[in-house]
Amino acid sequence: MRIIGIDPGSRATGYGVVDLDGRKLLHVAHGIVRVSASIPQAARLAQIHRALAEVVTKFEPQCAVIERVFVARNPKSAIVLGEARGAALAALAGSGLGVDEISAREVKKAVTGNGGATKQDVQAMVSRLLGLVPAPPSDAADALAIAICRSQAGRLAGLEIRRGRRRPRRLADLTRDLP
Amino acid sequence: MRIIGIDPGSRATGYGVVDLDGRKLLHVAHGIVRVSASIPQAARLAQIHRALAEVVTKFEPQCAVIERVFVARNPKSAIVLGEARGAALAALAGSGLGVDEISAREVKKAVTGNGGATKQDVQAMVSRLLGLVPAPPSDAADALAIAICRSQAGRLAGLEIRRGRRRPRRLADLTRDLP
Repeated sequence: MRIIGIDPGSRATGYGVVDLDGRKLLHVAHGIVRVSASIPQAARLAQIHRALAEVVTKFEPQCAVIERVFVARNPKSAIVLGEARGAALAALAGSGLGVDEISAREVKKAVTGNGGATKQDVQAMVSRLLGLVPAPPSDAADALAIAICRSQAGRLAGLEIRRGRRRPRRLADLTRDLP
Repeated sequence: MRIIGIDPGSRATGYGVVDLDGRKLLHVAHGIVRVSASIPQAARLAQIHRALAEVVTKFEPQCAVIERVFVARNPKSAIVLGEARGAALAALAGSGLGVDEISAREVKKAVTGNGGATKQDVQAMVSRLLGLVPAPPSDAADALAIAICRSQAGRLAGLEIRRGRRRPRRLADLTRDLP
């Protein structure tokens, strides 16, 4: 199963692609779609849409997962973040992918064992799980962490995907099975 | 000049296309992209994106204008509205269109003379300005009003498009020039 994780943002949208081959977790690709602040917002959103559609065409993931958001600093930033998410989600679903949502806290907890983990903690753990040296940049590491978290959903029966009910277990408990 | 106005929403996105031919304002098309609540949000956003891209291909507007938003009831609804806007904006800009933004209040004020006009007021005035009987449904009327407001931007020198400074004049003052 090939999974693409997306960490959407209005300036930088991270993506990470992993394969789950039996119990083996393999890195496929990662990157960041950066958009210029000097072009209009609509053009930025079109760039995000186009770039992610190209990534999906290139790597052919079978499912997608995106960070769920609950809060934003204020309504203005919620709209702007929502716009970036909308462009990304339209690209993923427009390419025929189902898109699951996982909260950042669940991802952090599953990958590092701590829902309040720092970006550096996530980077370090993603680097370790996928054998990446040097560690991917933070936005891409977050996207890879989202994909990794999704890849473990079958095994972490309690992982809260979409409408979770149980508390997630630590992905770190399972790392002995990983390459 | 052919203008497409967009009134984005997570369940219904209105569009309206008008031509400005000299001083004449002509109706070209209007419609509503409705998305089902029973399909996932990502699939809904892909539908909005695809439908608006098709509308642009069909009617070939030269510029686009969308309702600007400042506020939302809460961060959750701001995210959801932002996502619909993101899918719409990516479709418009992805089709090569520049996208202006006008606030709902400016549109209402320009079209009806009252920034706090009801949806019925806007419907009635759009119907009158474009000679449409019966009046278009509300979401499409709002989109037509946005396009009409944009069409008058050159003549309403004070109209606040993007970073307005002066107070808009009433479009109603100009209706004697309209068909």
